Amino acid sequence: MRKIRAGILGASGYTGSDLLRFLLPHPSVEITFLTADKHAGKRISDVFPHLSGFCDLELSPLDPKALPEDLDVVFLALPHGASAKVVGELYDRDIKIIDLGADFRLSHEVYTVWYGEHPHPGLIPEAIYGIPEINRERLKTAKLVANPGCYPTSVILGLLPLAWEQLLEPGLVIADSKSGVSGAGRSPSLDTHYCEVNEGVKAYKVGEHRHMPEIEEVIREYSGIDLRVQFVPHLIPMDRGILSTIYVRLNKAMSTGELLELYGKHYENERFVRICPEKAYPSTSQVKGSNFCDIGIKGDPESKSAIIVSVIDNLVKGASGVAVQNMNIMMGFEESEGLNIPPMFP
Amino acid sequence: MRKIRAGILGASGYTGSDLLRFLLPHPSVEITFLTADKHAGKRISDVFPHLSGFCDLELSPLDPKALPEDLDVVFLALPHGASAKVVGELYDRDIKIIDLGADFRLSHEVYTVWYGEHPHPGLIPEAIYGIPEINRERLKTAKLVANPGCYPTSVILGLLPLAWEQLLEPGLVIADSKSGVSGAGRSPSLDTHYCEVNEGVKAYKVGEHRHMPEIEEVIREYSGIDLRVQFVPHLIPMDRGILSTIYVRLNKAMSTGELLELYGKHYENERFVRICPEKAYPSTSQVKGSNFCDIGIKGDPESKSAIIVSVIDNLVKGASGVAVQNMNIMMGFEESEGLNIPPMFP
Amino acid sequence: MRKIRAGILGASGYTGSDLLRFLLPHPSVEITFLTADKHAGKRISDVFPHLSGFCDLELSPLDPKALPEDLDVVFLALPHGASAKVVGELYDRDIKIIDLGADFRLSHEVYTVWYGEHPHPGLIPEAIYGIPEINRERLKTAKLVANPGCYPTSVILGLLPLAWEQLLEPGLVIADSKSGVSGAGRSPSLDTHYCEVNEGVKAYKVGEHRHMPEIEEVIREYSGIDLRVQFVPHLIPMDRGILSTIYVRLNKAMSTGELLELYGKHYENERFVRICPEKAYPSTSQVKGSNFCDIGIKGDPESKSAIIVSVIDNLVKGASGVAVQNMNIMMGFEESEGLNIPPMFP
Amino acid sequence: MRKIRAGILGASGYTGSDLLRFLLPHPSVEITFLTADKHAGKRISDVFPHLSGFCDLELSPLDPKALPEDLDVVFLALPHGASAKVVGELYDRDIKIIDLGADFRLSHEVYTVWYGEHPHPGLIPEAIYGIPEINRERLKTAKLVANPGCYPTSVILGLLPLAWEQLLEPGLVIADSKSGVSGAGRSPSLDTHYCEVNEGVKAYKVGEHRHMPEIEEVIREYSGIDLRVQFVPHLIPMDRGILSTIYVRLNKAMSTGELLELYGKHYENERFVRICPEKAYPSTSQVKGSNFCDIGIKGDPESKSAIIVSVIDNLVKGASGVAVQNMNIMMGFEESEGLNIPPMFP
Repeated sequence: MRKIRAGILGASGYTGSDLLRFLLPHPSVEITFLTADKHAGKRISDVFPHLSGFCDLELSPLDPKALPEDLDVVFLALPHGASAKVVGELYDRDIKIIDLGADFRLSHEVYTVWYGEHPHPGLIPEAIYGIPEINRERLKTAKLVANPGCYPTSVILGLLPLAWEQLLEPGLVIADSKSGVSGAGRSPSLDTHYCEVNEGVKAYKVGEHRHMPEIEEVIREYSGIDLRVQFVPHLIPMDRGILSTIYVRLNKAMSTGELLELYGKHYENERFVRICPEKAYPSTSQVKGSNFCDIGIKGDPESKSAIIVSVIDNLVKGASGVAVQNMNIMMGFEESEGLNIPPMFP
Repeated sequence: MRKIRAGILGASGYTGSDLLRFLLPHPSVEITFLTADKHAGKRISDVFPHLSGFCDLELSPLDPKALPEDLDVVFLALPHGASAKVVGELYDRDIKIIDLGADFRLSHEVYTVWYGEHPHPGLIPEAIYGIPEINRERLKTAKLVANPGCYPTSVILGLLPLAWEQLLEPGLVIADSKSGVSGAGRSPSLDTHYCEVNEGVKAYKVGEHRHMPEIEEVIREYSGIDLRVQFVPHLIPMDRGILSTIYVRLNKAMSTGELLELYGKHYENERFVRICPEKAYPSTSQVKGSNFCDIGIKGDPESKSAIIVSVIDNLVKGASGVAVQNMNIMMGFEESEGLNIPPMFP
Repeated sequence: MRKIRAGILGASGYTGSDLLRFLLPHPSVEITFLTADKHAGKRISDVFPHLSGFCDLELSPLDPKALPEDLDVVFLALPHGASAKVVGELYDRDIKIIDLGADFRLSHEVYTVWYGEHPHPGLIPEAIYGIPEINRERLKTAKLVANPGCYPTSVILGLLPLAWEQLLEPGLVIADSKSGVSGAGRSPSLDTHYCEVNEGVKAYKVGEHRHMPEIEEVIREYSGIDLRVQFVPHLIPMDRGILSTIYVRLNKAMSTGELLELYGKHYENERFVRICPEKAYPSTSQVKGSNFCDIGIKGDPESKSAIIVSVIDNLVKGASGVAVQNMNIMMGFEESEGLNIPPMFP
Repeated sequence: MRKIRAGILGASGYTGSDLLRFLLPHPSVEITFLTADKHAGKRISDVFPHLSGFCDLELSPLDPKALPEDLDVVFLALPHGASAKVVGELYDRDIKIIDLGADFRLSHEVYTVWYGEHPHPGLIPEAIYGIPEINRERLKTAKLVANPGCYPTSVILGLLPLAWEQLLEPGLVIADSKSGVSGAGRSPSLDTHYCEVNEGVKAYKVGEHRHMPEIEEVIREYSGIDLRVQFVPHLIPMDRGILSTIYVRLNKAMSTGELLELYGKHYENERFVRICPEKAYPSTSQVKGSNFCDIGIKGDPESKSAIIVSVIDNLVKGASGVAVQNMNIMMGFEESEGLNIPPMFP
């Protein structure tokens, strides 16, 4: 079978690196085009020596008009705003687009509140929100996919079974998330300077992070339940991983056992969601490098509440891995093709 | 002025190490006696090479009867159960006792639920709970001090102003805490083996940690408010530090500014509590090695709730530092003597 | 094509975990048998939750006599001494054996100096030393392979081209190696307790490490040159990776360019050795999780010396990865099958 | 006694932070002036929240002419080139100057080779090289002190007793150094971006680091021995600490015991150099936060060589701590005043 031809716009960041980690050995994909504005002219192996011997493509500047005609799919790993412009230029061409940025995740109304003006609001309704566990059927025919945010993925997968079963009490939900530093990208800044981050934990954007409205919108759209998420992200001294501890109130008392059964049933056919046994709570290190979301649950029937602990690798299930999963679905490949590798522990 | 003579029972753990870091250069204290059962006969500098040149005492086995007569104060850094027995043997002697363990922190009733039988329940009412910001006056004449737990210190200092002002809504409060690994002590185990902990975050004892009832009891005792704390501790790949993110409901709407003013006023004479400016949230690295508790606050008047972020060094304000602070108060020294050093950053 | 059936004796350590990471998705291998004495009766996914969904085999106790008859190959990840005994019991069966321990790496004479009595000295000459870059042809027909030590692999691959070309001056060579903590295994001890290792570097077994004679013997055997290696291993606060900085004296002046050309030519057909461009020196993070050895070189013609910097992932090219590479060669598979995946960065 | 008045030029980096950690609680010093060009107008506690409650000085722009008249001593923590210019402007004033930069460490001839033109070559001979273990007497009357480099401090203190006793064989010496990331300063760059450094070790500036000639010059000047140092620095994923493994050839065979005795005798009156017992090698974590240099030694009489392992905290004995030690000597204070605190472990 002919391999499809794929390109990555914005290949020199950590998301680009992890896309290449999965796509270069992917049996059905050939990587033929890469851009990286500030490294244009260099080879990808100059920017990422770990890829030496795997890929030697020259990095092109970002210019949607100069995109090769023969690409079947393009991944956008660009800053917000930038990808919307690129999508505007590419949308009429015969190409599938997977946007790993924020530009097509939110409704137009909410986008403008959190990000400002949108360059192509008319395209927003065309984008399919790329959590396969929610939108698998619609993804099969999607032309444009809005890859989900990393924090929202961990929180939404933790809430979905309760949301779908209408067991969530509307109102305040607390999502206390802890992320490794790679989530902040590869551009140097004081906030991600080694000695500023190492040996410390801090909260940031308390109650003001742009991933908060994404969670609220998705839960509302797919379950009708109005949550008000108090979302506090924390920066943890490690490379990869997000752990979200989610505190919910339920509309009925449920034991841990009942909750585990519910989650087990909902996710039983999902390759990339694993439910932990009772009293076991996942570490981010058990999903490192992989496309899994592992979930542990504690019910508190007395207070009709529950605590859900969900972990992902932010660069994989939170970015590149789910993008490849979405591509597999869009292209009719086996959904786990190229992703079916065990996590790396330690 | 004569220096007081101090001893440490259980000197070979991380708490012992940090007690020595503060007590060896303390102008009013002389360390004259150390025990460490499994290292008895060695010198402390064999067990802790970093103390070479500061202290060369030989480690004695733990035997309360063999305690030198001339000690003025003794610090107990022992496993729970063990310190209660030692206190029982020492209580009739003319010596001040600071117990860094859990044996005298809880009421007898609650202790038995979480730890089992108490060896000396009659002594429990004699112990003063050692958070100086609560009990300074009573500590001045205390003979036996129950040093607080590390997690509870971070949570209680974060809640106190709201509790004292009767602004906390009774019922569920969420305390999501993140701790460095030194909190687990110095005994090797798979859970604290380097590669098991590094590059990962995990929750443990979800809703079942023994520090949960301590928080509830202290808040109830000192404010009359009945909280039900959903406490989830997390293990973070770093040596020192606890960050607690506390989600509370208030009985009236309060802005961030109003909350900061309230906290500023309550803690204005406290040397070791610092309130962060609006929109700033503390990192554990800004208190590393020091006796400070730094607090950041976000009010959410719309939902009558607030988020409090509090950080300490678990080995200092959460253990050894507050023990020295308590000793200073008990002995009539200047309260910050020997503790007035800046945090170490980075 | 029928998959071969493989077993791992000693599957619950980090080497076992990484063997499973490569073998479970390997297209030509089926894992059918695992032992782990202290976890016998549990499932591998209880011991390694990250493998949940990939392997659910029950762990057997270690008993060579109870080994299933239908195994084609068995990997031994056992303490030294233990594997020699097992090999003694299995050697007459129709099975290929890859020993990841130290029992068959050294000549009998040298073994007894460093390890004491050998249980089966008669088998030592039967073992092929498993560095494919040296012994590819002999490995094709090997029945018993002695997988090399992790430190020696990094040093030997760094020295080979100079040794083969007879450019190394006999006598003192310095190998200053830095290793991540996984090299010390998964058994808890104070030396690998998180807070003892984190935020510190230390040297250990200075001039006394058992990997020193392995380097000397291999270089002598395959090049005739008598080196006296001053080998100092250091423990670095990270999970994976070995970097060896090797200081050699040459018998003629060579520039960096000449050295790079020599190394490039020697390794040009080796899939898993990559030579860095001039002035670039490898980081262990550029081989993390992969089977590569990356090498950077600096010539110092004035003093007729050179500095070679070589990096591997100690658990992969230093243990499990090269074991799989050896298996591929022994079984007639494509040598890089199952190993052809990019490193994970970050 | 009146406290002396001290200023720091370039106070917003890690060296500035650690100078303040020691100087703010120093009994004989009052900090009255701070500059930080890019943060001019802010308070130091805005830049370093950990110093809140200790110092609230406003940061001035760097302008030597605007330096307050009443300063007794000034510390320069500036980029190379910058401090020479400042010294030029200040030298005629009645003020003591401690330069933590590189501008006055080398002879003019060597400086120009490694750094280019020197702004004030005439002042170079006025500067006293600030290793107290070498230059204590001359420091007592010094007006201008050239604080030593961090790497050279660790190597020179490791070599001194052998150099002074004329036991070092001239020619090649190997210094393989491992440094924490704080040595690279506080300015963000890709090289010190968290995920680039974490979980990896790399060599850099192999045989080309500017600290190499400093070591050679100092040994030659103070012992007459011509060494050619092959110096390879490595970056280690930790905040603080340098470990140097030094491989030397001796002009006679010496056992470990003889070497330890020699070192013990030479350093017996040095408060800040500690010699480890036989077979013990220091970890950087045993000097963390302190002004100590700890040294372990292994003799190899058979090859007339030795291995010396020396550790310091690069920000303390390698920068700020030794600067305070030098200030104490210059001002006639007790040499260890303000520095006599135990290391922080863990």
